[in-house]
Amino acid sequence: MANVIDRSEWFTEVYEHSGSAFSLALKSDCLHHQKTPFQTIEIYDTTKFGKLMVIDGFVMLTSLDNFFYHEMISHTALFTHPHPKNIVIIGGGDCGTLREVLKHKQVEQVWQVEIDEQVTRLAEKYFPELCESNNDPRCQLDFGDGIEWIASAASATKAGKQNIDLIIVDSSEPTGPGESLFNEAFYHNCYRALGDDGILIQQSESPLVSGSLIKEMHTAMRSAGFCQTKIIPFPQPVYPTGLWSVTMAAKRGDLNKFRYNDADNKDFLCQYYSAALHQGTLATPPFIAAFLAAI
Amino acid sequence: MANVIDRSEWFTEVYEHSGSAFSLALKSDCLHHQKTPFQTIEIYDTTKFGKLMVIDGFVMLTSLDNFFYHEMISHTALFTHPHPKNIVIIGGGDCGTLREVLKHKQVEQVWQVEIDEQVTRLAEKYFPELCESNNDPRCQLDFGDGIEWIASAASATKAGKQNIDLIIVDSSEPTGPGESLFNEAFYHNCYRALGDDGILIQQSESPLVSGSLIKEMHTAMRSAGFCQTKIIPFPQPVYPTGLWSVTMAAKRGDLNKFRYNDADNKDFLCQYYSAALHQGTLATPPFIAAFLAAI
Repeated sequence: MANVIDRSEWFTEVYEHSGSAFSLALKSDCLHHQKTPFQTIEIYDTTKFGKLMVIDGFVMLTSLDNFFYHEMISHTALFTHPHPKNIVIIGGGDCGTLREVLKHKQVEQVWQVEIDEQVTRLAEKYFPELCESNNDPRCQLDFGDGIEWIASAASATKAGKQNIDLIIVDSSEPTGPGESLFNEAFYHNCYRALGDDGILIQQSESPLVSGSLIKEMHTAMRSAGFCQTKIIPFPQPVYPTGLWSVTMAAKRGDLNKFRYNDADNKDFLCQYYSAALHQGTLATPPFIAAFLAAI
Repeated sequence: MANVIDRSEWFTEVYEHSGSAFSLALKSDCLHHQKTPFQTIEIYDTTKFGKLMVIDGFVMLTSLDNFFYHEMISHTALFTHPHPKNIVIIGGGDCGTLREVLKHKQVEQVWQVEIDEQVTRLAEKYFPELCESNNDPRCQLDFGDGIEWIASAASATKAGKQNIDLIIVDSSEPTGPGESLFNEAFYHNCYRALGDDGILIQQSESPLVSGSLIKEMHTAMRSAGFCQTKIIPFPQPVYPTGLWSVTMAAKRGDLNKFRYNDADNKDFLCQYYSAALHQGTLATPPFIAAFLAAI
């Protein structure tokens, strides 16, 4: 790979899959560099995007633009579920998704299962605005394996324990550590852990260059028992191609409908999400509909 | 500026304004490099984005993702105007916008005014799919100054000549050669050249990092006489931040309404645009609505 990286002034991530690279200009040297038992985490200060968190060389988030992702992976699902009370976040260590989830007053309990506690500790230090709700009594931060957690929840549910309304998989990409979060076995356990109105929502990469992966995801979700799947595209400047997506899977009901009035009358502010915007993103662009048509 | 460019394997554009850079992996050396009286044009072949046209170091378009821009700068305006017959494209030398415009059967005449003929000649060679309608008898390719053309059309209209229904400003950025296309004097001539239902549509940069410029544009359009302005955001992977926009300005009528049924029953295919998608993009995201609120 060519040297597109000059670490003294830029952070660059090369996107092998899309034959492109994205660079952020830095204000200073690396603020923090740490090898944890799970991965290598780096924190930088950029000139225009605020703080930057990098894991194993992949951009995770910046202060400037994380709102797209965090709002779209939470509010779309929360306003689609008829009465979301018990929520699980798998991954999500930066706590930005957690913050959005806790804005919903009817939410009673959130379990966040992040494998690497250091992601959260560093987010608390460098992205304090994302962690402002971490002390909310409704949330419990668990540091452990999300796949095991869901498998265990699936069995507990089977044994008559409390159902989960919404599972949010806020993970890294489907190669490497996150791989086991993108297959039918995991989806099947999600299905079992969820209540009858249960929804699974997961980040689903770039529709422009990862069409076949997205199609496989949707197929696996349906094979696992979900009756409907729906992709929601949105901008995410610091991810490959700048166009990203989440995918919802429902046990029943229609993902093209949501609690519009509740979303329109929500008592909190968003930067990207709105009821009208949510309605708008349900119109899947033709090039995405084309590769999902055969499912 | 740091060396993020290794020209042997990558083309890199540094976005000063957003403190970021975008690179495309190349298959080969530069295919074409030419200094014209107006600018320097380069053509590359990328590994995943197809052909790439660069002008004065700025990415203009690639084969893979130009559809977002070309569809959104044409169909949104064409389906908003009640009866678009006479269209002017200022710039647009790659002919991708022209191709989309000519898909509308009711369009009777299109004048394209591109200052640099070489842009079109190179598009014909390296982006032939965008030029497939260049021989349509309804279109006339003029190579000249768009600002003078519009000024002249404004006077002619005043003298009772044929009105223009739609002006599409498919230009480069508002610094450098394109600067005079982003001010009240130009907009005022557009206003005069347009018929009563006339619409002006213009590319309007990244809403994430160019909010103040977009606000100035909208203000100048309204000062020039347009009664309403409307921003339409859409993904554009190879432009800064990957989130781009066009702005429409109307002499009368409501830009939040369009010929939905005609758009839904159009007899041509699109990759991004659809009636439902158009409806969706009318929901301006809150962070964009916020900086436009005071106008």
